[in-house]
Amino acid sequence: MGSTSDLPVMEKTAEILNTFKIPFEINALSAHRTPADVENFAKNAESRGIKVIISAAGMAAHLPGVIAAMTSVPVIGVPIKVSLEGLDSMLSIIQMPPGIPVATVGINGSLNAGILAAQIIATGDRNLLSEVKKYKESLKKKIVMANEELKAIKYKYKTN
Amino acid sequence: MGSTSDLPVMEKTAEILNTFKIPFEINALSAHRTPADVENFAKNAESRGIKVIISAAGMAAHLPGVIAAMTSVPVIGVPIKVSLEGLDSMLSIIQMPPGIPVATVGINGSLNAGILAAQIIATGDRNLLSEVKKYKESLKKKIVMANEELKAIKYKYKTN
Amino acid sequence: MGSTSDLPVMEKTAEILNTFKIPFEINALSAHRTPADVENFAKNAESRGIKVIISAAGMAAHLPGVIAAMTSVPVIGVPIKVSLEGLDSMLSIIQMPPGIPVATVGINGSLNAGILAAQIIATGDRNLLSEVKKYKESLKKKIVMANEELKAIKYKYKTN
Amino acid sequence: MGSTSDLPVMEKTAEILNTFKIPFEINALSAHRTPADVENFAKNAESRGIKVIISAAGMAAHLPGVIAAMTSVPVIGVPIKVSLEGLDSMLSIIQMPPGIPVATVGINGSLNAGILAAQIIATGDRNLLSEVKKYKESLKKKIVMANEELKAIKYKYKTN
Amino acid sequence: MGSTSDLPVMEKTAEILNTFKIPFEINALSAHRTPADVENFAKNAESRGIKVIISAAGMAAHLPGVIAAMTSVPVIGVPIKVSLEGLDSMLSIIQMPPGIPVATVGINGSLNAGILAAQIIATGDRNLLSEVKKYKESLKKKIVMANEELKAIKYKYKTN
Amino acid sequence: MGSTSDLPVMEKTAEILNTFKIPFEINALSAHRTPADVENFAKNAESRGIKVIISAAGMAAHLPGVIAAMTSVPVIGVPIKVSLEGLDSMLSIIQMPPGIPVATVGINGSLNAGILAAQIIATGDRNLLSEVKKYKESLKKKIVMANEELKAIKYKYKTN
Amino acid sequence: MGSTSDLPVMEKTAEILNTFKIPFEINALSAHRTPADVENFAKNAESRGIKVIISAAGMAAHLPGVIAAMTSVPVIGVPIKVSLEGLDSMLSIIQMPPGIPVATVGINGSLNAGILAAQIIATGDRNLLSEVKKYKESLKKKIVMANEELKAIKYKYKTN
Amino acid sequence: MGSTSDLPVMEKTAEILNTFKIPFEINALSAHRTPADVENFAKNAESRGIKVIISAAGMAAHLPGVIAAMTSVPVIGVPIKVSLEGLDSMLSIIQMPPGIPVATVGINGSLNAGILAAQIIATGDRNLLSEVKKYKESLKKKIVMANEELKAIKYKYKTN
Repeated sequence: MGSTSDLPVMEKTAEILNTFKIPFEINALSAHRTPADVENFAKNAESRGIKVIISAAGMAAHLPGVIAAMTSVPVIGVPIKVSLEGLDSMLSIIQMPPGIPVATVGINGSLNAGILAAQIIATGDRNLLSEVKKYKESLKKKIVMANEELKAIKYKYKTN
Repeated sequence: MGSTSDLPVMEKTAEILNTFKIPFEINALSAHRTPADVENFAKNAESRGIKVIISAAGMAAHLPGVIAAMTSVPVIGVPIKVSLEGLDSMLSIIQMPPGIPVATVGINGSLNAGILAAQIIATGDRNLLSEVKKYKESLKKKIVMANEELKAIKYKYKTN
Repeated sequence: MGSTSDLPVMEKTAEILNTFKIPFEINALSAHRTPADVENFAKNAESRGIKVIISAAGMAAHLPGVIAAMTSVPVIGVPIKVSLEGLDSMLSIIQMPPGIPVATVGINGSLNAGILAAQIIATGDRNLLSEVKKYKESLKKKIVMANEELKAIKYKYKTN
Repeated sequence: MGSTSDLPVMEKTAEILNTFKIPFEINALSAHRTPADVENFAKNAESRGIKVIISAAGMAAHLPGVIAAMTSVPVIGVPIKVSLEGLDSMLSIIQMPPGIPVATVGINGSLNAGILAAQIIATGDRNLLSEVKKYKESLKKKIVMANEELKAIKYKYKTN
Repeated sequence: MGSTSDLPVMEKTAEILNTFKIPFEINALSAHRTPADVENFAKNAESRGIKVIISAAGMAAHLPGVIAAMTSVPVIGVPIKVSLEGLDSMLSIIQMPPGIPVATVGINGSLNAGILAAQIIATGDRNLLSEVKKYKESLKKKIVMANEELKAIKYKYKTN
Repeated sequence: MGSTSDLPVMEKTAEILNTFKIPFEINALSAHRTPADVENFAKNAESRGIKVIISAAGMAAHLPGVIAAMTSVPVIGVPIKVSLEGLDSMLSIIQMPPGIPVATVGINGSLNAGILAAQIIATGDRNLLSEVKKYKESLKKKIVMANEELKAIKYKYKTN
Repeated sequence: MGSTSDLPVMEKTAEILNTFKIPFEINALSAHRTPADVENFAKNAESRGIKVIISAAGMAAHLPGVIAAMTSVPVIGVPIKVSLEGLDSMLSIIQMPPGIPVATVGINGSLNAGILAAQIIATGDRNLLSEVKKYKESLKKKIVMANEELKAIKYKYKTN
Repeated sequence: MGSTSDLPVMEKTAEILNTFKIPFEINALSAHRTPADVENFAKNAESRGIKVIISAAGMAAHLPGVIAAMTSVPVIGVPIKVSLEGLDSMLSIIQMPPGIPVATVGINGSLNAGILAAQIIATGDRNLLSEVKKYKESLKKKIVMANEELKAIKYKYKTN
């Protein structure tokens, strides 16, 4: 991520990776302030065994695209809402030119970034795949429980 | 994709997958018109050995998210520009709720969708990885050639 | 609705249906987390005697469209404001492809969704129609009373 | 509709109503130019046996809301794209104040307006309901045929 | 205005009209809830000696346009910010079809609406014209005083 | 207006003023290129007997606001569509700070600007007022005729 | 700037100019309220030795463009967020017509305006250039320190 | 610029620099495809005597910001309209994080980029300054001539 100010949003990524027991590292790197560190990170990612890179940035969010330009490891971009309701960072990340894709998730979509990373790694890891499946299955429960709660609400003409 | 009207945009995906020698199939499936076929496709994708799904749709583009809800295979979403400059399909694809990510690329970003798919598959395929690297390397040449062309343009005060 | 977090907005729908003495049920169903339950609900709605379905969702709001794809019962969509001022959910609900309409109301328009449902049911129910007419008539009173209050406000050059 | 210039878009509504054998009339009425005619039309709609009103308008599209204010018959609004990609008419129609809903469909969504009208009328008409079901079923065929066509396209690494 | 909830914004209009000693009345009228009252008001405005109408409304703001359709008195529209940052009401008021203009001011621009009304009436009232000129002149003073305050702020390298 | 490139849009203003027999002049003035001429024009407008100023501009459209800052004559602003669908010019004209209103009409709303000017002048001119009324009345005819044309269109189930 | 209400945002400009030891003055000038003062300021800027002008404004932000029209000194525009998330002021400043550029920075980008001014002045001032370089270098440290902090955060599967 | 496809827009920059007799070079450099070349260019710009860099890019336009991150030479950014009416490139260029400004001009504002560059260089070059002044003066003539043309247009009630 571009600075520690993104951490409150990105904590959910760390937590879900923890849940999936996926080893990870967290770096603060800036496309504009530490371009040499970004280059070092991006160019060595593959040889260091990194399978997926998750990159979060706000405003004119160049970090995900700049990293994607210097590696063949898939890059997931997370637009952080800082200004203009997050529209500026979303467009700066997703509208990449032909040849250099960034797999973009929704605004402040840190949880989804972690799940997408898990799905990508799981294409080559059967154990992780079954963890991801279990997780997706667990999402149902929350809704099913919500449904139960709704049944407890009383209105005169409510039928269930 | 949702209909054959998306084919002119999505041909670039087929071509780049061909370039990478990645076996693929093309389906017309509609989240709204053939939901049962979408369910069959999504639920069986993994057991049929599908590594990545690329889903294109326009307007209120539900197909990528609906597929992502029914599989753990990574889903890449391609917003097709039909109305509102493509903003409606981009938001309908990218702004997924927590738990169900779609890896979204830019508006009409069919080429990038194919490259991203290759990058994801390449996380578990060394040969493909080196093909992807070669491709990314080749992107430079186009720019380098463009640079040469620009040198041929004459202005009185142009210095190179 | 997609989760109980939509309940504070959607309570107004329940209240107005109560006012109109229209029997109703409330369900939490997610197009992405419990697609099978959505399918069951949608496919059986008509045979269970459901006349209108009101579906609320935020962000990439697929629920109304996915339900509409699986039933001939009219579906009213309520865009919930979660992000981007509600523009993402509004576009995800309203911009449906040809063949599968969703009757969309304004952002967080839960009261209007209930009134619209009443108007639809009233096309075949004379008693309800006269209730709806009375309700619409009552809206005038609020404005007429507001007008009275305004007369009490004094400015030096105010003439009424 | 507001003028005959909306006719090319709205023809699809007439055609689909014809397909469903639903009797209809077409009027050019303007909220701003012929308000008295609008009032006559709206206030007498119910007693003339009109079940649903479809109202199309562009720019600052007031017609659907103004009609909805003067009748309890459900009003379907069709935003016509004249300026600003149709965003102005969409917001002018959908963002109605509490109490006066307009069932809004997508920009230039004339076909969907007709289908929605049929669905509403079908809540009290079994024969029409079965026509609507047949129509929705027929939508599948178009996609299924599209799928067949896609199979005919050859790429070296295409598998089906 | 459409309801007393617009009063906190519209108070500035009343105050500035008071400042200019322009006689005025305040009404709560709704294009959708009290259309007959709106019609009475609009159609009789001119014969009652009303020179300018200021109409404020939020969301799908039809009131200014609907009044403008029924009178030749100039109508000033004030978009009230209720949703979508006020963009919906601004577009609903300003994008009027050819033939029925509304003189629209900025979002929540109640003060400017009053000044514009004064300017319009002043085209036929020399005394008011000189009041308006004085007022416009007084705007300078605020800026000139602000400039003085800024001089009091000290920075090491500030030169004035 | 800012340049002769605005003339094709603004011709409608000239024509409607002609229709109303309102004497007028046309000037090309630029807030940015000929600020001194703008100042001369604005400061002398009132003493030259000008009743209303209509100012058209595109992009960062400053002309209407700059003129409004230097006169008490009402200024009507016409946003010209050059870029961004005209949204940039509309916001640059309408969102004036407190104290300096511009009466803004819709994008490319040149006809409405002329009618609004006529309505403003008519507040002090009984003959013109009756011309404006006649004009507004004539708008009805166009719609009434459109209605007649629509009756000629045949569909099998069309009832009128 | 247009008023002292912009001061809380613009303080960062003063502070960074102080850091760079660049002499500066602060003025409150309004394109609309004190146009004559704006003209005096702009026309005399160059002869008074001013190298760069930084102009901040909100809403229909005309000040930067109006100044740029009356001087050849480079003008940096700072869009202040007052309404519409700052989109109105950004478009009013940046979308200048051909011939009169304003060097626009991001919404509320007061710090960047000061740095850009320093960079421009540094094109002719070696000492300042080396100060700017040092400053840019110092930006790295913040990120490098952030990186250190992130290493202190513990997750079970975090690897660094 | 990012590719030769930007050349038709950027030719105006070359022409105006020619007019000002400012020596320049044109390069095709891509933040994503030739990042090493971008780095070489940016890091050596100052020592090669480059006074200002003009950088054009479309879509997720990272080039101007990435260059600005690696040099203290002022960078002018030109958003090229490729998609979304140019809004994506404008936001990607202008919304830079604190510390790394890009002097952004309007969408496709290639002429203004050249003039702004001239103004910046002219802060240290008296001859160029007088050329820029002459150029700005010449802009008036175009408007003055336009004004003459307008006088030739005849309308019955046109007074000049």
